Order: sequence, then C-alpha cells, then structure tokens
Amino acid sequence: MGVAPTLEDVLAAAGRIAGEAKRTPVLTCASIDAIVGMRLFFKCENFQKVGAFKFRGATNAVRMLDEDEAAAGVVTHSSGNHAQALALAAQRRGIPAWIVMPTNAPAVKRTAVEGYGATVIECEPTLAAREAGAAQVLEETGATFIHPYDDPRIIAGQGTAALELLDDTLGLDAVIAPVGGGGLMSGTCVAVHGLNPHVKLYGAEPENADDARQSLEAGALIPVGAANTIADGLRTSLSDLTFDILREHLDGLPTVAEDEIVHALRLVWERMKIVIEPSSAVPLAACARLHPELAGKRVGIIVSGGNVDLDRLPWMTGSPA
Amino acid sequence: MGVAPTLEDVLAAAGRIAGEAKRTPVLTCASIDAIVGMRLFFKCENFQKVGAFKFRGATNAVRMLDEDEAAAGVVTHSSGNHAQALALAAQRRGIPAWIVMPTNAPAVKRTAVEGYGATVIECEPTLAAREAGAAQVLEETGATFIHPYDDPRIIAGQGTAALELLDDTLGLDAVIAPVGGGGLMSGTCVAVHGLNPHVKLYGAEPENADDARQSLEAGALIPVGAANTIADGLRTSLSDLTFDILREHLDGLPTVAEDEIVHALRLVWERMKIVIEPSSAVPLAACARLHPELAGKRVGIIVSGGNVDLDRLPWMTGSPA
Repeated sequence: MGVAPTLEDVLAAAGRIAGEAKRTPVLTCASIDAIVGMRLFFKCENFQKVGAFKFRGATNAVRMLDEDEAAAGVVTHSSGNHAQALALAAQRRGIPAWIVMPTNAPAVKRTAVEGYGATVIECEPTLAAREAGAAQVLEETGATFIHPYDDPRIIAGQGTAALELLDDTLGLDAVIAPVGGGGLMSGTCVAVHGLNPHVKLYGAEPENADDARQSLEAGALIPVGAANTIADGLRTSLSDLTFDILREHLDGLPTVAEDEIVHALRLVWERMKIVIEPSSAVPLAACARLHPELAGKRVGIIVSGGNVDLDRLPWMTGSPA
Repeated sequence: MGVAPTLEDVLAAAGRIAGEAKRTPVLTCASIDAIVGMRLFFKCENFQKVGAFKFRGATNAVRMLDEDEAAAGVVTHSSGNHAQALALAAQRRGIPAWIVMPTNAPAVKRTAVEGYGATVIECEPTLAAREAGAAQVLEETGATFIHPYDDPRIIAGQGTAALELLDDTLGLDAVIAPVGGGGLMSGTCVAVHGLNPHVKLYGAEPENADDARQSLEAGALIPVGAANTIADGLRTSLSDLTFDILREHLDGLPTVAEDEIVHALRLVWERMKIVIEPSSAVPLAACARLHPELAGKRVGIIVSGGNVDLDRLPWMTGSPA
C-alpha cells in the first residue's frame, strides 16, 4: 500500500531518526577484496540497535505518527527483527506496541520483544492467523498497523543506511543489498539513485527464495511459497509497492545457493571479525555472479543484521544448513 | 631490553604506520553499558590487519630498521599473532622474515605466516628450543630479532591504538587493556598518560596467568609458569621493561576467573556483533571488579584481537573452556 517514497522522504527520515538509530561504520577487508576481485565497502547494520537495519524504518514510522495516533500505539505481526525494532521504537517514544507472534517462535525472540516493553500476542503459525491476530488488536485498541516492508515510511527509513554509506564512501560504482520483502532494497534504490543515478544497483536473493527474480522476469508479482533457506530474513515475498520500486531501479538480481551463503557467512566472520546473520552474507555470495560487470569496481554492500543463535551456527555439527 | 618509549616515540610510530595499519573504529553498545553500569568505548583492534593490534608494533619496528638492517630481514619466535604481524610487516617492506614456531603449533597458524611470505622454522615446543632456533637464524642471516613485547619500538607501536582511542573519544575517565607480556598495556600507558595524566589506567589479567599482579604486589618480576587460561594471548609473562612501565603507570590490575572470561566473550559476540578472541574479553570481565571506582564513568577498552577457531568456540560442547 502507499506510493513509493522519494529521496526527500529518505532525507526527512534521516533527520527523524538522528540520535535514535546509530550511524554505523563502513568497514573494508583487504583479504576479501583479493578473493572477490572488487573493492568492497560494508555498511554494518549488524551494529544497529536491535542488531538490524529494521530499527531505522520502525523508528521513522513511529516518529511520523501524530500525537493521537501515537497514543493509541502500534501493532505488527512478525517473529523477526522487525518485531524487536518496532517494540524498541515504540518504547523510545513512550507508546504501547503489540506484536503478534506465532506460537512456534523461539522463546529468545519473545523475551527480547517483551524486554522492550511490548505486549506479545500468540497465534497459530499461519499467515491467516497472524493477520487475524493483528486485526483483532487493531479493532480493540485503535493502534496503527506497521507492516515490516509494505509501507513507504518503513522504506524511507531503511533507505537512510544507503544514504550514510554514500556519504562515507567516495565514488561507489555499485551497491548490493539482500532482497526479502524488498523494504531494504527499495529504500536503497530510492536513496542511491536519488543521489546519483549512475550508481548500479543489485539485489541478491537465495535461489531457494527467488520470488523477486521470478517476479522481475515475469513482469508481475509472483509470491514464493514456503521458502527453505538458511537466510531466514529473506523468506518473505515482495509486495506490489516494493516490486514496482525494484523493477524501476535494479540493474540485476543474482541468486545464490545455500552452500554459497554459508561459505560467504563464514568468510565474513573469519576475515572481518564481525557477526552477521545468513541473510547478510547473500550479497557477498552474489559477488561471484557479478564479477563480469563489477571486477575492480568500488562496491557497497548493506550488511542487514547480526542476529544469530550462537549455539546453532551453520558450520556446527547437527545444525541446520 | 631498551628504555621505555615516550609519547614522542608513540607519535612518531603513528606517523610511521599511517597507511599501513588500519585506523580501527571505536564502537559502543548501550545494552552492555546498562549491564556494567559504565559508558564503554571499545577500540576494535580485532579489525586490525592480521586480526590483532600486534600489526602496529611489528610495522613500527620493521619501518625503523635502516636500509642495511632491513635488507638482512627480521626473525622472531612466536606461534601467535606477533608471528603473523611480523610476517606481514616484513612482506610490506619487501624484506625477508623468519618465524621460529613449535612443532605443535596449529597448521592454520603456520599456513597464515607462510601466506605472508615468511619462512617458518620448526623447533621443539620449549622456550629453550625457540630461543636456540632464533639464535641460529640470527647467526646464519644477520637478521634483526624482533621480540613480541620486550622492545621499545614494539611498545611505541602498540601505543598508537590508545592514541587513536583518545583522539576519537572525548573525555575518557579511564582505559583498560589486557596484560600478557605487557607490550599493549605499556604502550597504552605511555600514550594515555603522555596525553592526559588524569586518565586512570587499568590492566586486566586472567587469575590463571596473574604474573603481573604477583609482580606488582611483590615489587619484583615474578614470571608465571605454564599458564592454563582460555585467554591464550595472555599466557606470557612481563619483561623487566614492561614491568617497570606498568609499575609506574597502573592504577589497578584486576584479575578474572575463566568462567567470567567466557561470559564476557559471549556477551560481546551477542550484543556487539563482533568476533573477539578470549584475551580481548578480559577487560570487560574486569569491569565488575572496577565498578566501585568506575560506576557511571567513560571507560575505554582496547579490544586486542579477533583470532579464534570458529570450529572450537568455548561454548560449544567438547571445546576447551
């Protein structure tokens, strides 16, 4: 729903979230550059509050509510980073938040959301039950529903990461971001092409959750079924809004296999000494596909988040891979 | 051996290593601040080249050699981060390096050193054998021996990390660094008190390798035997030179138990999303001991390095702890 945000919306979001979200550093790594044959600049949203870029969009959306709307609170359905992000953004504005979560969500996620003062509402683990749960909260409370990506306020907020990346890194030739629901990629497109239409833009997706590629090839939105990928942040499908933005801006959308994601993940941990989640390794894994176009170029990568279970890393025996 | 470096030596080192070593970022973490009750500023030398601060000292020492000395190369005995640091520093100046390493050193360490173009010389895993191996190389090649910490050039180089920390962080009340051989702590003392004698300085040590505490209490150097600590970078003992510097500057030297180190290690990985080695968790673990003096204060922590075996993390079953 809604119309695509503009660069002005992203700039306004940057002003709104200043002092709330962190200005995360851009890191480089000579040994990974040598391996991929590009000069990579990693925008480290794994260091963002709640451990993911999601805090940017959630904060922008919460800060844009007028006083009456804000007093009634916010609601979403999510078991991922958006849930924590919205909970913390609401807490910092001092307004209530309700998070509808499936009964099979990990206890640690529920605890984190409750730690930020939000109320968790359990539902059956189906999309229908999640939507029904959220609808019920809306009816009872008059709260505002904040979708994780199908919302121009969210997209504008996510775009602020790319804004900072371009501000801190001179002369980028291209930017790559992971594509799940498309909120981060859409905000990145609006910010980057708003500032400089000559910078190439690439999305990166798991082969096992390639709804965006299928949609772009077909020229129409094709939602993915139950996606089986270790990149759990990328299992969702585009919305009409994010599909339209990606179709307008993307120069390419490489997909990568599961073993390539795990390999790239471990490479980043070992060489860059940062903890990133599997979704964040997808753009680096995609660099091999993009080498014909980007060899020797200066390429920005948005590292989306760092929320992993340290007891279940993909290279441990018995872990899901 | 040698006399203690001065602030001028550290400043000169900073000029010498500029463009060679990375200027690493200073990171903060609100949730860890809330847990320890201080405002912490982490100087991230885990992002340094070769994954540790050691590259600073090694580069300074290698760059200080005159042309004739440099042509004959450098030698050291080490199986740790200093070995890789010296190998890379020598490679970047284009001079040979010989690293004497015990036969029981992990293959990955040997491979890394050889990857930087150094020649590895194997010896029996005793200090006597290591020193004999190095002496033989010296005799055969005329190379310069570069000790990992008992050397004013090394200490001055390590001090540049604290220089940058103070430059990037206004109004620090205290700085904490881990203490093994004392090179990093000594450089930190010289840099920090050279710039501002009012900043408090603390070393932090494992209880199981508390030679520095014993030495400071006794007023004389007491080397530690075979130290059994997960903080493998801190198993070495002070030298006369580093002991003298620490005795002059330190305001305290708390020690911590092994389980406290593992707890702090995991906290940093989980909350800050950075990969640090156990030695680097020792100062954070020591914050609990320092709370009476430092509650609410602005405290810098030197994160010494990030070289860990991702297949053998301390919280994994069957790993050493």
